[in-house]
Amino acid sequence: MSATGRLVGVGVGPGDPELMTLKAIRALGRADVVAHFAKAGTAGNGRAIAEIHLRPGADELPLLYPITTEIPKHDPTYRATIAKFHDDAAAAVAARLEAGRTVAVICEGDPLFYGSFMHLHARLARRYPTEIIAGVTGMSGCWSAAGVPIAQGDDVLIVLPGTLTEAELTRRLAEADAAVVMKLGRNLPKVRRALIEARRLDRAVYVERGTMADSLVLRLAEKTDDRAPYFAVVLVPGFGAAR
Amino acid sequence: MSATGRLVGVGVGPGDPELMTLKAIRALGRADVVAHFAKAGTAGNGRAIAEIHLRPGADELPLLYPITTEIPKHDPTYRATIAKFHDDAAAAVAARLEAGRTVAVICEGDPLFYGSFMHLHARLARRYPTEIIAGVTGMSGCWSAAGVPIAQGDDVLIVLPGTLTEAELTRRLAEADAAVVMKLGRNLPKVRRALIEARRLDRAVYVERGTMADSLVLRLAEKTDDRAPYFAVVLVPGFGAAR
Repeated sequence: MSATGRLVGVGVGPGDPELMTLKAIRALGRADVVAHFAKAGTAGNGRAIAEIHLRPGADELPLLYPITTEIPKHDPTYRATIAKFHDDAAAAVAARLEAGRTVAVICEGDPLFYGSFMHLHARLARRYPTEIIAGVTGMSGCWSAAGVPIAQGDDVLIVLPGTLTEAELTRRLAEADAAVVMKLGRNLPKVRRALIEARRLDRAVYVERGTMADSLVLRLAEKTDDRAPYFAVVLVPGFGAAR
Repeated sequence: MSATGRLVGVGVGPGDPELMTLKAIRALGRADVVAHFAKAGTAGNGRAIAEIHLRPGADELPLLYPITTEIPKHDPTYRATIAKFHDDAAAAVAARLEAGRTVAVICEGDPLFYGSFMHLHARLARRYPTEIIAGVTGMSGCWSAAGVPIAQGDDVLIVLPGTLTEAELTRRLAEADAAVVMKLGRNLPKVRRALIEARRLDRAVYVERGTMADSLVLRLAEKTDDRAPYFAVVLVPGFGAAR
Protein backbone atom coordinates (compact mmCIF):
# COMPACT_ATOMS: atom_id res chain seq x y z
CA MET A 1 0.00 0.00 0.00
CA SER A 2 1.49 3.33 -1.01
CA ALA A 3 1.58 6.35 1.30
CA THR A 4 -0.98 9.12 0.89
CA GLY A 5 0.02 12.50 -0.47
CA ARG A 6 0.40 15.73 1.46
CA LEU A 7 -2.05 18.63 1.67
CA VAL A 8 -0.36 22.06 1.51
CA GLY A 9 -2.26 25.31 2.11
CA VAL A 10 -0.23 27.93 0.25
CA GLY A 11 -0.72 31.59 1.19
CA VAL A 12 0.02 33.68 -1.92
CA GLY A 13 -0.46 37.07 -0.27
CA PRO A 14 -2.78 40.01 -0.92
CA GLY A 15 -2.50 40.51 -4.67
CA ASP A 16 0.95 41.73 -5.75
CA PRO A 17 2.76 38.60 -7.03
CA GLU A 18 5.97 40.08 -5.58
CA LEU A 19 4.44 39.64 -2.12
CA MET A 20 4.55 35.85 -2.47
CA THR A 21 7.06 34.13 -0.19
CA LEU A 22 9.91 31.89 -1.36
CA LYS A 23 8.22 29.04 0.50
CA ALA A 24 4.94 29.50 -1.39
CA ILE A 25 6.72 29.66 -4.75
CA ARG A 26 8.69 26.49 -4.03
CA ALA A 27 5.61 24.62 -2.80
CA LEU A 28 3.68 25.46 -5.97
CA GLY A 29 6.61 24.43 -8.14
CA ARG A 30 6.88 21.04 -6.42
CA ALA A 31 3.19 20.09 -6.08
CA ASP A 32 1.69 17.27 -8.16
CA VAL A 33 -1.69 19.01 -8.17
CA VAL A 34 -2.46 22.72 -7.75
CA ALA A 35 -6.01 23.44 -6.54
CA HIS A 36 -7.67 26.84 -6.29
CA PHE A 37 -11.05 28.25 -5.33
CA ALA A 38 -12.92 30.47 -7.76
CA LYS A 39 -16.42 31.54 -8.53
CA ALA A 40 -17.91 29.55 -11.42
CA GLY A 41 -17.16 31.40 -14.64
CA THR A 42 -14.07 33.26 -13.30
CA ALA A 43 -10.38 32.39 -13.21
CA GLY A 44 -9.91 33.11 -9.50
CA ASN A 45 -7.83 35.87 -7.90
CA GLY A 46 -5.49 33.49 -6.12
CA ARG A 47 -4.58 31.65 -9.29
CA ALA A 48 -3.91 34.95 -11.08
CA ILE A 49 -1.50 36.01 -8.32
CA ALA A 50 0.38 32.70 -8.46
CA GLU A 51 0.19 32.14 -12.20
CA ILE A 52 3.79 32.84 -13.19
CA HIS A 53 5.00 30.37 -10.57
CA LEU A 54 2.90 27.41 -11.68
CA ARG A 55 4.82 24.57 -13.29
CA PRO A 56 3.99 24.38 -17.01
CA GLY A 57 1.72 21.39 -17.44
CA ALA A 58 0.91 21.19 -13.73
CA ASP A 59 -2.26 19.27 -12.98
CA GLU A 60 -4.80 21.89 -11.93
CA LEU A 61 -7.92 21.33 -9.85
CA PRO A 62 -10.30 24.30 -9.91
CA LEU A 63 -12.81 24.26 -7.03
CA LEU A 64 -15.70 26.29 -8.39
CA TYR A 65 -18.19 27.83 -5.98
CA PRO A 66 -21.78 27.26 -7.10
CA ILE A 67 -23.75 30.32 -8.14
CA THR A 68 -25.89 31.24 -5.12
CA THR A 69 -26.84 34.83 -5.87
CA GLU A 70 -30.50 33.76 -6.16
CA ILE A 71 -30.61 32.30 -2.63
CA PRO A 72 -30.90 34.56 0.48
CA LYS A 73 -27.90 34.03 2.82
CA HIS A 74 -30.07 33.07 5.80
CA ASP A 75 -32.08 30.53 3.82
CA PRO A 76 -31.15 26.97 4.94
CA THR A 77 -30.79 26.11 1.25
CA TYR A 78 -27.85 28.53 1.01
CA ARG A 79 -25.97 26.92 3.90
CA ALA A 80 -26.73 23.43 2.57
CA THR A 81 -25.53 24.37 -0.93
CA ILE A 82 -22.25 25.79 0.40
CA ALA A 83 -21.69 22.87 2.79
CA LYS A 84 -22.21 20.39 -0.05
CA PHE A 85 -19.75 22.35 -2.20
CA HIS A 86 -17.12 22.18 0.56
CA ASP A 87 -17.78 18.45 1.06
CA ASP A 88 -17.40 17.80 -2.68
CA ALA A 89 -14.25 19.95 -2.89
CA ALA A 90 -12.71 18.05 0.05
CA ALA A 91 -13.60 14.73 -1.61
CA ALA A 92 -11.94 15.82 -4.88
CA VAL A 93 -8.77 16.79 -3.00
CA ALA A 94 -8.88 13.61 -0.88
CA ALA A 95 -9.04 11.44 -4.02
CA ARG A 96 -5.70 12.95 -5.18
CA LEU A 97 -4.17 12.56 -1.69
CA GLU A 98 -5.27 8.90 -1.57
CA ALA A 99 -3.48 8.42 -4.89
CA GLY A 100 -0.25 9.58 -3.23
CA ARG A 101 -0.18 12.99 -4.86
CA THR A 102 0.82 16.24 -3.10
CA VAL A 103 -1.96 18.82 -3.45
CA ALA A 104 -1.11 22.52 -3.05
CA VAL A 105 -4.16 24.72 -2.49
CA ILE A 106 -3.69 28.34 -3.55
CA CYS A 107 -5.00 30.69 -0.83
CA GLU A 108 -5.29 34.46 -1.23
CA GLY A 109 -3.70 36.19 1.75
CA ASP A 110 -3.05 33.76 4.59
CA PRO A 111 -4.61 30.25 4.53
CA LEU A 112 -6.00 30.21 8.08
CA PHE A 113 -7.16 33.86 8.26
CA TYR A 114 -10.75 34.15 6.96
CA GLY A 115 -9.91 31.88 4.00
CA SER A 116 -11.88 29.31 1.96
CA PHE A 117 -9.07 26.83 2.56
CA MET A 118 -10.20 26.52 6.18
CA HIS A 119 -13.19 24.46 5.02
CA LEU A 120 -10.83 21.93 3.41
CA HIS A 121 -8.54 22.03 6.45
CA ALA A 122 -11.45 21.23 8.77
CA ARG A 123 -12.39 18.22 6.65
CA LEU A 124 -8.93 16.85 5.77
CA ALA A 125 -6.17 17.92 8.19
CA ARG A 126 -6.84 15.11 10.69
CA ARG A 127 -6.78 12.48 7.92
CA TYR A 128 -3.76 13.52 5.83
CA PRO A 129 -0.32 15.04 6.48
CA THR A 130 -0.94 18.77 6.20
CA GLU A 131 1.33 21.79 5.94
CA ILE A 132 0.34 25.45 6.11
CA ILE A 133 2.47 28.13 4.44
CA ALA A 134 1.67 31.49 6.04
CA GLY A 135 1.08 34.42 3.69
CA VAL A 136 0.90 38.20 3.84
CA THR A 137 -2.72 39.02 4.77
CA GLY A 138 -4.91 41.36 2.76
CA MET A 139 -5.06 43.75 5.71
CA SER A 140 -1.23 43.96 5.94
CA GLY A 141 -1.16 44.70 2.21
CA CYS A 142 -3.70 47.47 2.70
CA TRP A 143 -2.09 49.29 5.63
CA SER A 144 1.33 48.99 3.97
CA ALA A 145 0.05 50.44 0.67
CA ALA A 146 -1.69 53.23 2.60
CA GLY A 147 1.36 53.90 4.82
CA VAL A 148 -0.89 53.66 7.90
CA PRO A 149 0.88 52.39 11.06
CA ILE A 150 -1.92 50.25 12.48
CA ALA A 151 -0.96 49.23 16.03
CA GLN A 152 1.93 49.58 18.46
CA GLY A 153 2.84 48.94 22.10
CA ASP A 154 -0.23 48.25 24.24
CA ASP A 155 -2.77 48.90 21.44
CA VAL A 156 -5.66 46.44 21.19
CA LEU A 157 -6.41 45.69 17.52
CA ILE A 158 -9.86 44.44 16.55
CA VAL A 159 -10.64 42.83 13.19
CA LEU A 160 -14.32 43.25 12.34
CA PRO A 161 -16.32 41.81 9.43
CA GLY A 162 -18.54 44.56 7.99
CA THR A 163 -21.36 42.01 8.01
CA LEU A 164 -21.99 42.58 11.76
CA THR A 165 -24.97 44.67 12.88
CA GLU A 166 -24.59 48.45 13.19
CA ALA A 167 -25.01 48.21 16.99
CA GLU A 168 -22.28 45.61 17.34
CA LEU A 169 -19.91 47.46 14.99
CA THR A 170 -20.44 50.65 16.99
CA ARG A 171 -19.82 48.98 20.34
CA ARG A 172 -16.68 47.19 19.11
CA LEU A 173 -15.24 50.25 17.36
CA ALA A 174 -15.81 52.47 20.40
CA GLU A 175 -13.52 50.31 22.53
CA ALA A 176 -10.84 49.52 19.94
CA ASP A 177 -7.49 51.30 20.01
CA ALA A 178 -7.06 50.17 16.41
CA ALA A 179 -9.45 48.42 14.04
CA VAL A 180 -9.69 46.86 10.60
CA VAL A 181 -13.14 46.52 9.05
CA MET A 182 -13.22 43.92 6.27
CA LYS A 183 -15.94 42.71 3.89
CA LEU A 184 -17.18 46.19 3.05
CA GLY A 185 -19.17 46.05 -0.21
CA ARG A 186 -22.73 47.12 0.44
CA ASN A 187 -22.00 47.23 4.19
CA LEU A 188 -20.14 50.53 3.76
CA PRO A 189 -23.03 52.91 4.70
CA LYS A 190 -23.64 50.90 7.89
CA VAL A 191 -19.91 50.84 8.72
CA ARG A 192 -19.72 54.59 8.17
CA ARG A 193 -22.65 55.21 10.55
CA ALA A 194 -21.02 52.96 13.17
CA LEU A 195 -17.71 54.85 12.85
CA ILE A 196 -19.52 58.17 13.35
CA GLU A 197 -21.40 56.86 16.40
CA ALA A 198 -18.18 55.42 17.85
CA ARG A 199 -16.37 58.76 17.19
CA ARG A 200 -13.79 57.08 14.97
CA LEU A 201 -14.64 58.52 11.54
CA ASP A 202 -11.91 61.19 11.70
CA ARG A 203 -9.24 58.48 12.02
CA ALA A 204 -10.71 56.09 9.42
CA VAL A 205 -8.85 55.42 6.17
CA TYR A 206 -10.56 53.72 3.21
CA VAL A 207 -8.39 51.40 1.06
CA GLU A 208 -9.50 49.76 -2.19
CA ARG A 209 -7.39 47.22 -4.17
CA GLY A 210 -4.64 47.65 -1.55
CA THR A 211 -1.71 46.02 -3.32
CA MET A 212 -2.75 46.54 -6.93
CA ALA A 213 -1.23 49.16 -9.21
CA ASP A 214 -4.53 51.09 -9.24
CA SER A 215 -5.05 51.20 -5.47
CA LEU A 216 -7.20 53.92 -3.94
CA VAL A 217 -6.47 55.34 -0.49
CA LEU A 218 -8.40 58.20 1.08
CA ARG A 219 -9.75 59.39 4.41
CA LEU A 220 -13.21 57.84 4.69
CA ALA A 221 -14.59 61.24 5.72
CA GLU A 222 -13.59 62.47 2.25
CA LYS A 223 -15.24 59.62 0.33
CA THR A 224 -18.47 61.10 -0.96
CA ASP A 225 -20.19 57.96 -2.27
CA ASP A 226 -21.18 54.65 -0.71
CA ARG A 227 -19.81 52.34 -3.39
CA ALA A 228 -17.17 49.83 -2.28
CA PRO A 229 -15.97 46.44 -3.52
CA TYR A 230 -16.30 43.53 -1.11
CA PHE A 231 -12.54 43.36 -0.53
CA ALA A 232 -12.08 47.05 0.30
CA VAL A 233 -11.18 47.72 3.95
CA VAL A 234 -11.43 50.53 6.47
CA LEU A 235 -8.41 51.04 8.73
CA VAL A 236 -8.63 52.83 12.08
CA PRO A 237 -5.01 53.30 13.19
CA GLY A 238 -4.08 53.21 16.87
CA PHE A 239 -0.46 54.28 16.93
CA GLY A 240 -0.72 57.57 15.05
CA ALA A 241 -3.79 58.63 17.02
CA ALA A 242 -2.02 58.24 20.35
CA ARG A 243 0.92 60.52 19.46
CA MET B 1 20.81 70.02 -5.54
CA SER B 2 20.52 66.25 -5.66
CA ALA B 3 17.35 64.33 -4.76
CA THR B 4 17.05 62.68 -1.38
CA GLY B 5 17.05 58.92 -1.06
CA ARG B 6 14.12 56.65 -0.32
CA LEU B 7 13.14 55.05 2.98
CA VAL B 8 11.94 51.42 2.63
CA GLY B 9 10.44 49.47 5.54
CA VAL B 10 11.07 45.84 4.63
CA GLY B 11 8.98 43.16 6.36
CA VAL B 12 11.10 39.99 6.52
CA GLY B 13 8.44 37.78 8.11
CA PRO B 14 8.25 35.81 11.34
CA GLY B 15 11.54 33.93 11.39
CA ASP B 16 11.82 31.32 8.67
CA PRO B 17 13.93 32.95 5.90
CA GLU B 18 11.75 31.07 3.37
CA LEU B 19 8.81 33.22 4.53
CA MET B 20 10.45 36.34 3.08
CA THR B 21 8.69 37.78 0.04
CA LEU B 22 10.28 38.33 -3.36
CA LYS B 23 9.69 42.05 -2.87
CA ALA B 24 11.59 42.10 0.42
CA ILE B 25 14.51 40.17 -1.05
CA ARG B 26 14.76 42.51 -4.04
CA ALA B 27 14.52 45.62 -1.87
CA LEU B 28 17.38 44.44 0.35
CA GLY B 29 19.49 43.55 -2.68
CA ARG B 30 19.02 47.03 -4.20
CA ALA B 31 19.40 49.22 -1.10
CA ASP B 32 22.44 51.45 -0.61
CA VAL B 33 22.16 51.09 3.14
CA VAL B 34 20.55 48.29 5.17
CA ALA B 35 19.50 49.30 8.68
CA HIS B 36 18.24 47.01 11.44
CA PHE B 37 17.17 47.29 15.06
CA ALA B 38 18.85 45.15 17.69
CA LYS B 39 19.54 45.15 21.39
CA ALA B 40 23.06 46.36 22.18
CA GLY B 41 25.35 43.34 22.26
CA THR B 42 23.16 41.16 19.98
CA ALA B 43 23.05 40.67 16.22
CA GLY B 44 19.28 41.21 15.89
CA ASN B 45 16.66 38.65 14.86
CA GLY B 46 15.59 40.56 11.77
CA ARG B 47 19.11 40.72 10.38
CA ALA B 48 19.57 36.97 11.00
CA ILE B 49 16.40 36.21 9.01
CA ALA B 50 17.51 38.39 6.08
CA GLU B 51 21.22 37.62 6.22
CA ILE B 52 21.56 35.42 3.15
CA HIS B 53 19.85 38.07 1.04
CA LEU B 54 22.12 40.97 1.99
CA ARG B 55 24.41 42.20 -0.75
CA PRO B 56 28.02 41.34 0.12
CA GLY B 57 29.70 44.54 1.19
CA ALA B 58 26.36 46.33 1.70
CA ASP B 59 26.61 49.36 3.96
CA GLU B 60 24.96 48.34 7.22
CA LEU B 61 23.50 50.63 9.85
CA PRO B 62 22.75 48.85 13.14
CA LEU B 63 20.29 50.76 15.34
CA LEU B 64 21.15 49.54 18.83
CA TYR B 65 18.58 49.90 21.61
CA PRO B 66 20.16 51.23 24.80
CA ILE B 67 20.25 48.89 27.77
CA THR B 68 17.32 49.89 29.99
CA THR B 69 16.86 46.82 32.18
CA GLU B 70 17.81 48.91 35.24
CA ILE B 71 15.03 51.49 34.67
CA PRO B 72 11.36 50.74 35.62
CA LYS B 73 9.10 50.98 32.55
CA HIS B 74 6.84 53.62 34.10
CA ASP B 75 9.74 55.84 35.16
CA PRO B 76 9.82 59.00 32.97
CA THR B 77 13.54 58.31 32.49
CA TYR B 78 12.67 55.12 30.61
CA ARG B 79 10.37 56.89 28.18
CA ALA B 80 12.88 59.70 27.68
CA THR B 81 15.70 57.23 27.04
CA ILE B 82 13.70 55.33 24.43
CA ALA B 83 12.42 58.51 22.76
CA LYS B 84 15.98 59.84 22.49
CA PHE B 85 17.08 56.54 20.98
CA HIS B 86 14.34 56.75 18.35
CA ASP B 87 15.22 60.39 17.62
CA ASP B 88 18.89 59.50 17.19
CA ALA B 89 18.04 56.47 15.01
CA ALA B 90 15.84 58.64 12.79
CA ALA B 91 18.60 61.22 12.52
CA ALA B 92 21.13 58.57 11.48
CA VAL B 93 18.76 57.29 8.77
CA ALA B 94 17.88 60.85 7.68
CA ALA B 95 21.57 61.66 7.18
CA ARG B 96 21.82 58.82 4.65
CA LEU B 97 18.57 59.85 2.94
CA GLU B 98 19.82 63.46 2.67
CA ALA B 99 22.93 62.08 0.95
CA GLY B 100 20.67 60.56 -1.71
CA ARG B 101 20.99 56.98 -0.51
CA THR B 102 18.15 54.46 -0.36
CA VAL B 103 17.84 53.04 3.15
CA ALA B 104 16.10 49.67 3.66
CA VAL B 105 15.11 49.00 7.26
CA ILE B 106 14.80 45.31 8.14
CA CYS B 107 11.57 44.69 10.10
CA GLU B 108 10.67 41.37 11.73
CA GLY B 109 7.14 40.38 10.74
CA ASP B 110 5.26 43.30 9.15
CA PRO B 111 6.69 46.84 9.37
CA LEU B 112 3.50 48.61 10.53
CA PHE B 113 2.18 45.91 12.89
CA TYR B 114 3.63 46.44 16.40
CA GLY B 115 7.10 47.06 14.94
CA SER B 116 10.08 49.25 15.92
CA PHE B 117 10.11 50.66 12.41
CA MET B 118 6.94 52.60 13.21
CA HIS B 119 9.01 55.00 15.32
CA LEU B 120 11.17 55.82 12.29
CA HIS B 121 8.09 56.02 10.06
CA ALA B 122 6.47 58.54 12.41
CA ARG B 123 9.58 60.74 12.30
CA LEU B 124 10.55 60.42 8.61
CA ALA B 125 7.66 59.40 6.33
CA ARG B 126 6.38 62.94 5.86
CA ARG B 127 9.86 64.24 4.98
CA TYR B 128 11.16 61.55 2.60
CA PRO B 129 9.71 59.27 -0.09
CA THR B 130 8.74 56.15 1.82
CA GLU B 131 7.74 52.65 0.77
CA ILE B 132 6.42 49.86 3.00
CA ILE B 133 6.84 46.22 2.02
CA ALA B 134 4.27 44.14 3.89
CA GLY B 135 5.50 40.97 5.57
CA VAL B 136 4.07 37.80 7.08
CA THR B 137 3.26 38.64 10.72
CA GLY B 138 4.53 36.66 13.67
CA MET B 139 0.96 35.68 14.54
CA SER B 140 0.33 34.26 11.04
CA GLY B 141 3.56 32.28 11.36
CA CYS B 142 2.37 30.90 14.71
CA TRP B 143 -1.15 29.83 13.74
CA SER B 144 0.20 28.31 10.51
CA ALA B 145 2.89 26.31 12.34
CA ALA B 146 0.29 25.17 14.87
CA GLY B 147 -2.30 24.34 12.19
CA VAL B 148 -4.88 26.42 14.08
CA PRO B 149 -7.55 28.02 11.86
CA ILE B 150 -7.90 31.36 13.64
CA ALA B 151 -10.95 33.18 12.26
CA GLN B 152 -13.61 32.74 9.59
CA GLY B 153 -16.87 34.25 8.40
CA ASP B 154 -18.34 36.68 10.93
CA ASP B 155 -15.73 36.00 13.63
CA VAL B 156 -14.38 39.05 15.46
CA LEU B 157 -10.62 38.65 16.02
CA ILE B 158 -8.96 40.58 18.86
CA VAL B 159 -5.19 41.05 19.13
CA LEU B 160 -4.19 41.67 22.74
CA PRO B 161 -0.80 42.54 24.21
CA GLY B 162 -0.19 40.43 27.32
CA THR B 163 0.93 43.62 29.05
CA LEU B 164 -2.69 44.67 29.69
CA THR B 165 -4.19 44.29 33.18
CA GLU B 166 -5.82 41.00 34.15
CA ALA B 167 -9.24 42.68 34.33
CA GLU B 168 -8.92 44.12 30.82
CA LEU B 169 -7.58 40.87 29.36
CA THR B 170 -10.51 38.98 30.92
CA ARG B 171 -13.11 41.43 29.62
CA ARG B 172 -11.65 41.46 26.10
CA LEU B 173 -11.20 37.68 25.91
CA ALA B 174 -14.76 37.02 27.10
CA GLU B 175 -16.20 38.90 24.13
CA ALA B 176 -13.77 37.71 21.45
CA ASP B 177 -14.77 35.02 18.95
CA ALA B 178 -11.06 34.58 18.27
CA ALA B 179 -8.03 36.09 19.98
CA VAL B 180 -4.26 36.30 19.77
CA VAL B 181 -2.36 37.24 22.93
CA MET B 182 1.13 38.52 22.19
CA LYS B 183 4.04 39.67 24.40
CA LEU B 184 3.74 36.78 26.82
CA GLY B 185 7.02 36.40 28.75
CA ARG B 186 6.37 36.97 32.43
CA ASN B 187 2.76 37.95 31.64
CA LEU B 188 1.83 34.28 31.10
CA PRO B 189 0.43 33.55 34.62
CA LYS B 190 -1.80 36.64 34.34
CA VAL B 191 -2.91 35.70 30.80
CA ARG B 192 -3.71 32.18 31.99
CA ARG B 193 -5.87 33.50 34.86
CA ALA B 194 -7.70 35.81 32.43
CA LEU B 195 -8.36 32.93 30.03
CA ILE B 196 -9.80 30.84 32.87
CA GLU B 197 -12.03 33.71 34.06
CA ALA B 198 -13.19 34.36 30.47
CA ARG B 199 -13.89 30.61 30.00
CA ARG B 200 -11.46 30.40 27.07
CA LEU B 201 -8.68 28.22 28.51
CA ASP B 202 -10.00 25.00 26.93
CA ARG B 203 -9.61 26.54 23.44
CA ALA B 204 -6.23 28.22 24.07
CA VAL B 205 -3.13 27.00 22.21
CA TYR B 206 0.37 28.01 23.30
CA VAL B 207 2.99 28.52 20.54
CA GLU B 208 6.69 29.16 21.11
CA ARG B 209 9.24 29.92 18.32
CA GLY B 210 6.40 29.54 15.82
CA THR B 211 8.33 29.34 12.56
CA MET B 212 11.61 27.95 13.84
CA ALA B 213 12.68 24.32 13.44
CA ASP B 214 12.35 23.77 17.21
CA SER B 215 8.84 25.21 17.59
CA LEU B 216 6.67 24.14 20.51
CA VAL B 217 2.89 23.88 20.20
CA LEU B 218 0.60 22.62 22.96
CA ARG B 219 -2.78 23.24 24.54
CA LEU B 220 -2.20 25.88 27.19
CA ALA B 221 -4.18 23.76 29.66
CA GLU B 222 -1.46 21.12 29.29
CA LYS B 223 1.45 23.49 29.89
CA THR B 224 2.46 22.85 33.48
CA ASP B 225 4.92 25.71 34.04
CA ASP B 226 4.70 29.47 33.71
CA ARG B 227 7.86 30.04 31.71
CA ALA B 228 7.45 31.71 28.30
CA PRO B 229 9.67 33.79 26.03
CA TYR B 230 8.47 37.30 25.21
CA PHE B 231 7.64 36.35 21.61
CA ALA B 232 5.53 33.29 22.47
CA VAL B 233 1.80 33.70 21.74
CA VAL B 234 -1.50 32.24 22.86
CA LEU B 235 -4.07 31.55 20.14
CA VAL B 236 -7.80 31.28 20.86
CA PRO B 237 -9.32 30.01 17.60
CA GLY B 238 -12.79 31.08 16.57
CA PHE B 239 -13.56 28.92 13.54
CA GLY B 240 -12.91 25.49 15.03
CA ALA B 241 -14.84 26.31 18.20
CA ALA B 242 -17.96 27.25 16.26
CA ARG B 243 -18.21 23.97 14.35
